Amino acid sequence: MKNSVSSRLTERTAAEVARTIYEPPMQGFDAPALERMCALNEAHAAMLAARGLIPADCARDILRGIAQIRAEGPAAIDLDPQFEDSYFAFENRLGQVAGKAVAGWLHVGRSRNDIGSTLDRMAARETCLALLAAMEEARRACLAAAGRHVLTVMPGYTHLQPAQPITFGYYLANVARGMEREHERLAAVLDRLDACPLGSAALAGTSFAINRDETADLLGFAGPAAPGLDAVASRDFVTELLWAVTSAQVLFSRVAQDLYVFTTWEFGALTFPDRVAGTSSIMPQKKNMLPLEYFRAEAGRSIGALAGALAAVKGSNYSIGLDSVREGVADAWPAFARFEAGLSLLRLIFETATPDAEKLLARCKANFSTATDLADGLVRDFGISFRDAHHVVGRAVQMVLAAGGGAEELTVAVLNEAAEAEIGRSFDLPEERLRRWMDPVEAVRARTVPGGTAPEVVSALLAEMEARLAADAGLRTRRSAALEAASERLASRVAELTA
Amino acid sequence: MKNSVSSRLTERTAAEVARTIYEPPMQGFDAPALERMCALNEAHAAMLAARGLIPADCARDILRGIAQIRAEGPAAIDLDPQFEDSYFAFENRLGQVAGKAVAGWLHVGRSRNDIGSTLDRMAARETCLALLAAMEEARRACLAAAGRHVLTVMPGYTHLQPAQPITFGYYLANVARGMEREHERLAAVLDRLDACPLGSAALAGTSFAINRDETADLLGFAGPAAPGLDAVASRDFVTELLWAVTSAQVLFSRVAQDLYVFTTWEFGALTFPDRVAGTSSIMPQKKNMLPLEYFRAEAGRSIGALAGALAAVKGSNYSIGLDSVREGVADAWPAFARFEAGLSLLRLIFETATPDAEKLLARCKANFSTATDLADGLVRDFGISFRDAHHVVGRAVQMVLAAGGGAEELTVAVLNEAAEAEIGRSFDLPEERLRRWMDPVEAVRARTVPGGTAPEVVSALLAEMEARLAADAGLRTRRSAALEAASERLASRVAELTA
Amino acid sequence: MKNSVSSRLTERTAAEVARTIYEPPMQGFDAPALERMCALNEAHAAMLAARGLIPADCARDILRGIAQIRAEGPAAIDLDPQFEDSYFAFENRLGQVAGKAVAGWLHVGRSRNDIGSTLDRMAARETCLALLAAMEEARRACLAAAGRHVLTVMPGYTHLQPAQPITFGYYLANVARGMEREHERLAAVLDRLDACPLGSAALAGTSFAINRDETADLLGFAGPAAPGLDAVASRDFVTELLWAVTSAQVLFSRVAQDLYVFTTWEFGALTFPDRVAGTSSIMPQKKNMLPLEYFRAEAGRSIGALAGALAAVKGSNYSIGLDSVREGVADAWPAFARFEAGLSLLRLIFETATPDAEKLLARCKANFSTATDLADGLVRDFGISFRDAHHVVGRAVQMVLAAGGGAEELTVAVLNEAAEAEIGRSFDLPEERLRRWMDPVEAVRARTVPGGTAPEVVSALLAEMEARLAADAGLRTRRSAALEAASERLASRVAELTA
Amino acid sequence: MKNSVSSRLTERTAAEVARTIYEPPMQGFDAPALERMCALNEAHAAMLAARGLIPADCARDILRGIAQIRAEGPAAIDLDPQFEDSYFAFENRLGQVAGKAVAGWLHVGRSRNDIGSTLDRMAARETCLALLAAMEEARRACLAAAGRHVLTVMPGYTHLQPAQPITFGYYLANVARGMEREHERLAAVLDRLDACPLGSAALAGTSFAINRDETADLLGFAGPAAPGLDAVASRDFVTELLWAVTSAQVLFSRVAQDLYVFTTWEFGALTFPDRVAGTSSIMPQKKNMLPLEYFRAEAGRSIGALAGALAAVKGSNYSIGLDSVREGVADAWPAFARFEAGLSLLRLIFETATPDAEKLLARCKANFSTATDLADGLVRDFGISFRDAHHVVGRAVQMVLAAGGGAEELTVAVLNEAAEAEIGRSFDLPEERLRRWMDPVEAVRARTVPGGTAPEVVSALLAEMEARLAADAGLRTRRSAALEAASERLASRVAELTA
Repeated sequence: MKNSVSSRLTERTAAEVARTIYEPPMQGFDAPALERMCALNEAHAAMLAARGLIPADCARDILRGIAQIRAEGPAAIDLDPQFEDSYFAFENRLGQVAGKAVAGWLHVGRSRNDIGSTLDRMAARETCLALLAAMEEARRACLAAAGRHVLTVMPGYTHLQPAQPITFGYYLANVARGMEREHERLAAVLDRLDACPLGSAALAGTSFAINRDETADLLGFAGPAAPGLDAVASRDFVTELLWAVTSAQVLFSRVAQDLYVFTTWEFGALTFPDRVAGTSSIMPQKKNMLPLEYFRAEAGRSIGALAGALAAVKGSNYSIGLDSVREGVADAWPAFARFEAGLSLLRLIFETATPDAEKLLARCKANFSTATDLADGLVRDFGISFRDAHHVVGRAVQMVLAAGGGAEELTVAVLNEAAEAEIGRSFDLPEERLRRWMDPVEAVRARTVPGGTAPEVVSALLAEMEARLAADAGLRTRRSAALEAASERLASRVAELTA
Repeated sequence: MKNSVSSRLTERTAAEVARTIYEPPMQGFDAPALERMCALNEAHAAMLAARGLIPADCARDILRGIAQIRAEGPAAIDLDPQFEDSYFAFENRLGQVAGKAVAGWLHVGRSRNDIGSTLDRMAARETCLALLAAMEEARRACLAAAGRHVLTVMPGYTHLQPAQPITFGYYLANVARGMEREHERLAAVLDRLDACPLGSAALAGTSFAINRDETADLLGFAGPAAPGLDAVASRDFVTELLWAVTSAQVLFSRVAQDLYVFTTWEFGALTFPDRVAGTSSIMPQKKNMLPLEYFRAEAGRSIGALAGALAAVKGSNYSIGLDSVREGVADAWPAFARFEAGLSLLRLIFETATPDAEKLLARCKANFSTATDLADGLVRDFGISFRDAHHVVGRAVQMVLAAGGGAEELTVAVLNEAAEAEIGRSFDLPEERLRRWMDPVEAVRARTVPGGTAPEVVSALLAEMEARLAADAGLRTRRSAALEAASERLASRVAELTA
Repeated sequence: MKNSVSSRLTERTAAEVARTIYEPPMQGFDAPALERMCALNEAHAAMLAARGLIPADCARDILRGIAQIRAEGPAAIDLDPQFEDSYFAFENRLGQVAGKAVAGWLHVGRSRNDIGSTLDRMAARETCLALLAAMEEARRACLAAAGRHVLTVMPGYTHLQPAQPITFGYYLANVARGMEREHERLAAVLDRLDACPLGSAALAGTSFAINRDETADLLGFAGPAAPGLDAVASRDFVTELLWAVTSAQVLFSRVAQDLYVFTTWEFGALTFPDRVAGTSSIMPQKKNMLPLEYFRAEAGRSIGALAGALAAVKGSNYSIGLDSVREGVADAWPAFARFEAGLSLLRLIFETATPDAEKLLARCKANFSTATDLADGLVRDFGISFRDAHHVVGRAVQMVLAAGGGAEELTVAVLNEAAEAEIGRSFDLPEERLRRWMDPVEAVRARTVPGGTAPEVVSALLAEMEARLAADAGLRTRRSAALEAASERLASRVAELTA
Repeated sequence: MKNSVSSRLTERTAAEVARTIYEPPMQGFDAPALERMCALNEAHAAMLAARGLIPADCARDILRGIAQIRAEGPAAIDLDPQFEDSYFAFENRLGQVAGKAVAGWLHVGRSRNDIGSTLDRMAARETCLALLAAMEEARRACLAAAGRHVLTVMPGYTHLQPAQPITFGYYLANVARGMEREHERLAAVLDRLDACPLGSAALAGTSFAINRDETADLLGFAGPAAPGLDAVASRDFVTELLWAVTSAQVLFSRVAQDLYVFTTWEFGALTFPDRVAGTSSIMPQKKNMLPLEYFRAEAGRSIGALAGALAAVKGSNYSIGLDSVREGVADAWPAFARFEAGLSLLRLIFETATPDAEKLLARCKANFSTATDLADGLVRDFGISFRDAHHVVGRAVQMVLAAGGGAEELTVAVLNEAAEAEIGRSFDLPEERLRRWMDPVEAVRARTVPGGTAPEVVSALLAEMEARLAADAGLRTRRSAALEAASERLASRVAELTA
């Protein structure tokens, strides 16, 4: 029995090949994929008609056929893997509805190679816009939560040990700042993929006098991609989007790592409502923060998808191949979908995280997190060098801890004992001033330097970040509107030709 | 509305959590997963009954309920993500068929944690046995092809440049040797996972006097896994199986890399029937070796799955969590399935690869691939050192190439000119002896050292490898039979208790 | 014995810790690292002096001390791992040359955390500029080679099977286009890292009234990084640079994959001079293309460095830690260095690759690579649909091959026999027109569509790419000049203060 | 100027090639590498002499020359990258000390390919034995710590929330169990690499009548590796060792993840002596657990090294090449060294970790971690199903928490209120029995099931694990002794031949 798609090959595709290679990607031919396929073929057919490269009635019948296929949806298309891929399955369906003689004209001046690259760019573009929208929502929720907590004092950590007092708002402002950079990385992909491969044909272009500017315009691209081999054989926009997603997942995993610890029974720093938690089948008391584990897991999976795609593409020739353009990057697409789902979860986390302000303030008082402020005070008021001040305070802390005490036991007397031992002098320091230096609220307020913790500094920064968010959202909206406009241009061209 | 599975939590799970975290894994609850779930619960219930830890009629009703659920298949189970996972969905269904009061007894002395780890080991065990069987078929096909071609002389390559003549049978014997080691790696996982976590409960064991030996035995494990935290929180058998799969995929990718080049128009060394190839939508002459690209792609994906799983697990606490046991290793399972499919493709490739013996022999004669034999001959017959011989022959080759000639132009005269220039002497060498040294068939035959290319050496090695294959197959068959026997022991226990 | 750097800790660092954690990074404290350390401390000291935060004579002595340390070079600094890191080793040396009392003042209003992040950004900035310069050279060599070969016809491949004729110039133009995108990715990092963390101190900023704008300016940054936790705890500029490097390495690996095959004895399409090749210790005839294997290997290593860094950072808390900022990203730096070395090799490859034009043209004539042009011709001249034309030509090729023939056997008679069988008609086609359609030179010339192979199209594209290269080089030069200017501003501030 | 190592090539190696490709690996030619090189060449020369393949005086002079080179150490060898690699540099030095005419005989019947594979196996074997020894020490320290703490009650966690009481000894016993499996994985590599490639020559064996059994024996291998292409072109023993190392690093990272949290100020569960901690340059109170971050970082790096090596090798041909055997796996070797260093750190951590037993016990009492025991008690004493008991206790916990109470507020009265609400009944339960059920010490003791927490169960398990450790150590010692014996056999053969 002959091959379904070529007269060069004299055998049907082996079952092992059909099942392993052709079937899996064809199973993903869903409604959005069909819509992209219809639009692409409409644009190509309309351009061919405009250039007189196919007969006018043929163009009309093709476009009517496509309209019918779109209306029927993907279920009407026979996805037999013997067709090799969804394009041939589509062309087969077009032959059924418009006649084989008509459908056979559609493939003038192109190849599955440029079709595939164009469809992938259209899909990546849609995906990227959806991710940016979800990212905006998560950023918005983060900024809102930050705004609610510019006064909620908590320990700031380095190496997960209490370092200096910050606020929960400050913490979240940092997260939001990190998210801004991830947003930039995601958005950069839209520019990098904004060129239409249609007309590159197999790899070398075509000898038909097609109009590449027109198909690019009707499909919402800035212009044609050139030269042709690069245009059909590269999917670096997929790996770059996957990189951007992975970079963001890594950030989220780090934040989840913190929040996971903050919600332990021992920290008790944050609580979440029951609807955000999981439970246990055996331990009746359990309330588990699965969503935070989720981000730790997903970052790993995303790293894997990235490494895997790069490893596959890296071994490919600089030409089209399964490894360079399809199986090689296949795991990117579900990774994008999971990232989008995760962003809704992240938004929920920002919306519902509730710090225990009282406990956190008390903890800042107890855990020596203002020791730096004490050293700073000594420098400022007594003119000793910072290194001397650091040694004096370090020894004072050590003495208090060795005596089993807490931060309130660090008195002027202890400090002076340490100072005598370290630098051979003492300080005429009123107890009350020492206490003020060691007050976490004062410490937070005192950091008025740009990027510091003082509430007014944080609030100003949040305002800037909200403005950037609005600008990013505006840019995305305009991009979506431009695609919509292209889609309308295409629809009216089709309307003319099928009138 | 209250939480479906816990009275500790006062809210229903948020939609974002249910959709993102609970739904995806529950969607994979297919017939084999249900069978494992049924068997596990039968073994546990039978053991509880034997120990008198649940009422006898309760055990009977549970076992009858399980029988009904098994008969109905997975479609009868409500997979509402509010149940959190398939175990609770199963318990819910059991409550529907056997009564909630009865079903509520089943969870004595255990947790979802030990259930999950046990189910994963059962699944990994089945998977591993299936992979070993498919691997055996591929090895068998490779050895058979090797046996057909112990006399088919072809260039052997280093750095993809012609090095020395080998045979296609020799090449494949090397591949088969690599596959033996991959087989060992896969098989090693079966021992490493052969311990039953059931009874570890959440992490610490249980205070009920359960019989862990019995459940282990009824489920075909060598014994209980201990201690309990490690038993429930580790999935290193999944990552190890993924490692073994990836290592094999890397080997296959290398072989595919060779065969891909061998099937180019320029090499023309190998052909495959049309049913193993793909074609082009635009270029009528094309016949593309997609199955070979497939292996290059899949190795990349498998590397990614491995790196991703390790990255996820690496960040987890040493306790149960989504990152340590579920989402973290989720991409391993489809990687196993793709590997199994790939093995059928690999078998097909070995079955159908056809070398062009005539062309390959001619090529060996033309491409200087016997230059080493010439140097060896000079060492043997004229007592010069190998390094001198190497320099003489190297210069002779260079002289011939510089004059635009081929291997047949490398005559005694040329050799002696080179020898004079390099070491200041010449050789009294009959032309015919030189030609014999440079005959690729002779060169292949001359390598009778163990591991060499001589046909009888290769044939003997293939016989050894066939014996090892038979032994490996026997071992796998015995393992499968042991699982079958455990399954029968379980069935008869259930029969007694439901009589 | 007490700890070298803290009075809080009462023990010397354990040998295992010192050797494993502190020693390895300190060993990398070379001359460029010292220069960055000196500049950073000069900028900080000058700013402190300007703000009156340290005594004027103290600032003067610090700056003089730094000048001495710079002059002495790294060898004068005691890199005892008990100092924990190079900053403390530097401060220790400053104490030795300027007095401990003076040196102790330098650390006002900052921490090792902001120092470390600033030094890393300075290093990444230098690295990135060096990589861009090397990338420009490689692009330039690629464009030059492309320009030499716009008329050198060769087979273009898809799936490594002959597809359509292209030129070697066209091939290289595609490579150059890919390199442009990689260049963009590398350059993007410079903007993303262009903010100075100094003044973020440990994570929360400082209560000293420092001038962050000034230190940023003196060190050549656009402004301060804020907020402080993100500024000190993030190294996403390192992972992004590593991503960009890896993406480029993947491209180079693909190109190397092609060239490696093109230089085989069987393809004989490209040759390289002996100085670019390696040889064999045993096989006198060997000439091995190691540099091409090198790129295949390096892309793998770079993928690993990226996956590893992401996996390490992903597990870190969103705060400073070894995993988030140091060991976690340690493998990035040597990967950058290897990439730079590789770029010089790549340039050499472009400079020296020599195609065998005669052989390549002959091959295009023999291998049916113009079958598409034949189908196109039938569509154009006889008004049949492309799919019909594809089937007719596909069958004709199959018939010729089945009869053991080559492309010259594909005559009008054969074509018409195929046409009758496929579509029940024949073509009144002069033999000469068929031959013209099948002439590879004609086929190359006919693709005048944008992105096509026609020499004038390629030449125009190369001109555009040269212009973009010039623009990229200009931008880089201006960036380097701006850093130089900052360096001069800093030098004159130091001169004033030490006058 | 001519090529240093081949008369086939007419140019010196280009500087870019020498610097980038040849120089870096040659720089690693240290004393252990020289020793392996000497031993390998002694074995080969001795075998050639025994077979009469080289003149006897020549063998003698070669062996004397090697003795001199060994005595001089690596510094005496000219590592000019023009030699391509360390073997040619060694042969060059041998020519200097023994005469070129003599040295030129050494390379009979072999190639750099089999030399390289043999040297790599010798290096991997040494490395593996060293890692096993270090692993034993870490296991020993872990078991010792576990033994000290079988009575130290602490909360056990799932999802990092208090789950059930365990002991610190139990926790560590789990860690030790995981380490046993990692030990097995490491040790498995020794068997897989135990075959000697010498005599495989370039890929096809040799026509000289060498004795492969003898060289294998003198170098301590079980026998020759065959067939030859696989023997020289595969480094799967390197990737497998890297896998085993990575798997262990992942385990250590998870344990470090736990301990890192346990040492926070908030958990205060564990303390470490000051010598194991780092400090801060600015915050005088800081004590940072850098060694635990180290393990989190290293696991990431190791994952990267593995993914990178696999990605490189995956793209290689199934033949020798830089990607398949050298650069491709280059990052494995430093990863092994870092792993060994890390094991000493891990040992130190086990030796010095000190739990705060009093605080941990109190925490178990407060955090509802015995809720399961309460549910179990209801099942056992009142005959209700586990699911009912779970709901009752879950609601009781919820009620107590909603009222702001702690575990001590969970009285019989509260329990009965919950029971009425959930299942419409109450329990005639003495308060004292409820308190006993909820006593963490009782809960720990009650889990006497195999793998449970009861001290006697854990102690018995530790004894088993100590026995396995002793067995593993014994096996390693015997392996080392066997290598030593081979080394002595070689020395005495050399002594005979040089007498």
